[in-house]
Amino acid sequence: MGCPPRLLCCLFLSLSLAAVVARAATRHQEWEISYQFKSPDCVRKLAVTINGETPGPTIRATQGDTVVVRVKNSLLTENVAIHWHGIRQRGTPWADGTEGVTQCPILPGDTFTYAFVVDRPGTYMYHAHYGMQRSAGLNGLIVVAAAPGGPDAEPFRYDGEHDVLLNDWWHKSTYEQAAGLASAPLVWVGEPQSLLINGRGRFVNCSAAGACDAAHPECATPVFAVVPGRTYRFRIASVTSLSALNFEIEGHEMTVVEADGHYVKPFVVKNLNIYSGETYSVLIKADQDPNRNYWLASNVVSREPGTPAGTAVLSYYGGRSSPRRSPPTAPPAGPAWNDTAYRFRQSVATVAHPAHVEPPPPRADRTILLLNTQNKIDAHIKWALNGVSFTLPHTPYLVAMKRPGLLDTFDQRPPPETYAHRGYDVYAVPPNPNATTSDGLYRLRFGSVVDVVLQNANMLAPNKSETHPWHLHGHDFWVLGYGIGRFDPAVHPASYNLRDPILKNTVAVHPYGWTALRFRADNPGVWAFHCHIESHFFMGMGIAFEEGVDRVAPLPPQIMGCGKTRGGH
Amino acid sequence: MGCPPRLLCCLFLSLSLAAVVARAATRHQEWEISYQFKSPDCVRKLAVTINGETPGPTIRATQGDTVVVRVKNSLLTENVAIHWHGIRQRGTPWADGTEGVTQCPILPGDTFTYAFVVDRPGTYMYHAHYGMQRSAGLNGLIVVAAAPGGPDAEPFRYDGEHDVLLNDWWHKSTYEQAAGLASAPLVWVGEPQSLLINGRGRFVNCSAAGACDAAHPECATPVFAVVPGRTYRFRIASVTSLSALNFEIEGHEMTVVEADGHYVKPFVVKNLNIYSGETYSVLIKADQDPNRNYWLASNVVSREPGTPAGTAVLSYYGGRSSPRRSPPTAPPAGPAWNDTAYRFRQSVATVAHPAHVEPPPPRADRTILLLNTQNKIDAHIKWALNGVSFTLPHTPYLVAMKRPGLLDTFDQRPPPETYAHRGYDVYAVPPNPNATTSDGLYRLRFGSVVDVVLQNANMLAPNKSETHPWHLHGHDFWVLGYGIGRFDPAVHPASYNLRDPILKNTVAVHPYGWTALRFRADNPGVWAFHCHIESHFFMGMGIAFEEGVDRVAPLPPQIMGCGKTRGGH
Repeated sequence: MGCPPRLLCCLFLSLSLAAVVARAATRHQEWEISYQFKSPDCVRKLAVTINGETPGPTIRATQGDTVVVRVKNSLLTENVAIHWHGIRQRGTPWADGTEGVTQCPILPGDTFTYAFVVDRPGTYMYHAHYGMQRSAGLNGLIVVAAAPGGPDAEPFRYDGEHDVLLNDWWHKSTYEQAAGLASAPLVWVGEPQSLLINGRGRFVNCSAAGACDAAHPECATPVFAVVPGRTYRFRIASVTSLSALNFEIEGHEMTVVEADGHYVKPFVVKNLNIYSGETYSVLIKADQDPNRNYWLASNVVSREPGTPAGTAVLSYYGGRSSPRRSPPTAPPAGPAWNDTAYRFRQSVATVAHPAHVEPPPPRADRTILLLNTQNKIDAHIKWALNGVSFTLPHTPYLVAMKRPGLLDTFDQRPPPETYAHRGYDVYAVPPNPNATTSDGLYRLRFGSVVDVVLQNANMLAPNKSETHPWHLHGHDFWVLGYGIGRFDPAVHPASYNLRDPILKNTVAVHPYGWTALRFRADNPGVWAFHCHIESHFFMGMGIAFEEGVDRVAPLPPQIMGCGKTRGGH
Repeated sequence: MGCPPRLLCCLFLSLSLAAVVARAATRHQEWEISYQFKSPDCVRKLAVTINGETPGPTIRATQGDTVVVRVKNSLLTENVAIHWHGIRQRGTPWADGTEGVTQCPILPGDTFTYAFVVDRPGTYMYHAHYGMQRSAGLNGLIVVAAAPGGPDAEPFRYDGEHDVLLNDWWHKSTYEQAAGLASAPLVWVGEPQSLLINGRGRFVNCSAAGACDAAHPECATPVFAVVPGRTYRFRIASVTSLSALNFEIEGHEMTVVEADGHYVKPFVVKNLNIYSGETYSVLIKADQDPNRNYWLASNVVSREPGTPAGTAVLSYYGGRSSPRRSPPTAPPAGPAWNDTAYRFRQSVATVAHPAHVEPPPPRADRTILLLNTQNKIDAHIKWALNGVSFTLPHTPYLVAMKRPGLLDTFDQRPPPETYAHRGYDVYAVPPNPNATTSDGLYRLRFGSVVDVVLQNANMLAPNKSETHPWHLHGHDFWVLGYGIGRFDPAVHPASYNLRDPILKNTVAVHPYGWTALRFRADNPGVWAFHCHIESHFFMGMGIAFEEGVDRVAPLPPQIMGCGKTRGGH
């Protein structure tokens, strides 16, 4: 006691620790979730907002920071949960915000605190992960700067930065949309009324619509200002409910440099295909005539468009055009919506930056082959993987698998590893559209290497197959390969890119195509893996992985309180 | 052990008990709550339904029966709670279904079982008691027959019976309504689009409205068939969100015989004023020309009507008119909407049946005088009692007061007993519209006799005062008196009717008027007392009483799980 040398030593250690801690800051946010009338596309509609806004505030942090978000649910009768899309939640699987998987929903009046480390630089997003609340407006961006001087510093230079959050928007409430999707016969949500850029759009039939005010400040066209001669990083994220998009900045080629938080071997495009759940960074040079403005435009691809382009304006400082002035041209129309090959080429072109290659393990310990089909269950239209349509359990998996006696809260039978792929015709209407529902999950050996091959196919209607953007929670995965047609396990793995595959958290499975991924099951927890189209996940297009749940630290009690962990049970 | 005489005695006792139990049946219901598209007034709208229907099924039971309702919440992201309006819940205060008062809400995916005894015959109702879900369609009737040969047998005869559930209906979602009410400036819900009889109405501008199908079977006019010469009991309940109604059966006088489950000294009316939360039984004689049909009509009173009459058809068996044929006349228009005196007279005429008088205690132990005012709090319009606008706590009172350490979950300061009534001008705009909010409650000495005088007043706008139907949970109260103008505690109690006052659970406070009630605080629990207008309660027009909470049996754990009783706390 009172030993001076030891005290000094302790003090020194504390100070060193303090220095480290000082570098990794804590970013606090206080959020109140409530319904508010908003006019994102000039039409007044009830939206789920954060502190009265949709999209919510952009979370800005530096690699290594801890982000702490205190979420107060001020919805009247509706619960909420928020997912931090692209953040791997290493050591904090309970903060992933996925209702039914990692937590119980947050009740009206309750406050829940999410706390997690943003351990990688890059462009991410957050959004509700409960029912269809994401589509109701609860979404926003997360921008993580690289730690100064660290190994993850950007391998590219730029003078300024702009953020672009792309979305699609419906005038019907998400309640109506969900009730229609759950109906037999199905009432489809239909194409969006508007496309939004940073939460703003313009409904095309404003004069004919009720509650539409074309002069409403909430739907004023966003303006992105640039200084002539400078290079800008545009961070682009898509949180659409349904739409695959093509994004273009008129007259300005884009160099793709980041995808889902990973540096890309730079390649130049006229425009960028981006699927829901994906993020990209592109560089543009402000080298055009500064005396006029230019369109930013998002256009629907992969589905026959029923929605006009979402638009914004690029304006040069010092030019002779007012920033508010519409460009003299028509907005870019994007590529042909059904040019799958065009979009396929971009997917294949997206590989790791040479200086930032993280080589994948050379082989997998397990391969799961997932046939994506549209199915019918009791006259309800569903989506299924290998004939199983996913339902979320009411006791979250993470809780059910950590606390004793709760394993009966979900189907203990593992879902199928594969499907009868030999002879399956991915171009034909499924011969047997039946499927079953299950909330069973895949248990992965901790530390094992897992390959997942997502196989797309024809839908219930002939000659239809859609792009599905699949998003994995808790991990980045290597994208080993893409193909069009039926995946053959005896043939196609030989063509995998094991040299410089990109790491992503969301990837497209093209119409009639397949996509092969690899990841290491090294993040203790339970993780959802699903199509990021809101209605598709709602209709069962997802699965869940468990890995190393025994290594998860004691769960915070705040994530419990539903299903079999309801108070008093 | 093995003593035969004692065994026989035991057997005999068991059999006697079995005989009693056999007489008191258990009525089981299995309910699934979900959103469905319904067309109650021919306009397609999302509604909260029970087993796919709105209104829900009528619960029919006999006095003494136990009603067991297993409620499965299949709403997507929204909780639920159901109140059994008029059932006193003696011994089962946790089954009252009042979110924030007696239970936590039922989460999506959860099943909650309500079990309670219907100890009195009469006409009651059930409805959601969470947010504004009642207005979204979650409501229905409870009809309890008198125990055969018991002391509560009806003091009147009839040959047949019809049930009439009155409602008002909006095309906007309750989410939009609630968000508007919570906004500053207030966005008022406005007058209903339609009035419904047994869940059916006809939107008047059907051809101009989207999603309106005048031939939809869900909005087919209800037909009530009668046999010429017979006498019918019409059970009439109003579950309106806003509207005070007048109900008339064209050409048929009505004899009022029951109010809120209590027998009334019969009186004859041409039409019946009925406020939200009230029930009546009337007798009509089928003594008119059987060869034509007659209108049943509900009309808005007390507010300037902006809604056409709700209509149904009375048709005679054996007459020459098809039951589906509209009567040859225009529907009755009801009395002048602003004829307060007309409605006041019906209130005063409603006294106990001579053979069923339950005399009130001669004096009260405590008198609470509640001034009903419209107020402004931070630019939000609210309703307040004695300057305090009510908010519900997030940990239900019943739980907070029974479980240790939870008293800090609500305001421990009791709300005010009275207001500065001397000199208060109930006809003037309130000189100071400010108010405070509180979730404090009134604690009543168990067994004590409590008088409550509800004093109405002018609203924020000049020359406006509305009828407020006040509903007390857990009790019937004696209605001791009504007046118009300012209640004077030194004068008016002398005129109380202590001889044959009616017992009710819901009573009107007329514009600029007062209503005096008395009840005995002898039902252990916590009980809401509030204006039954959905938007008024939402805006703070309510209080809560605690009595004998120490006598409440151990709480079922199923009512917990929110606020400070969330799982893990």
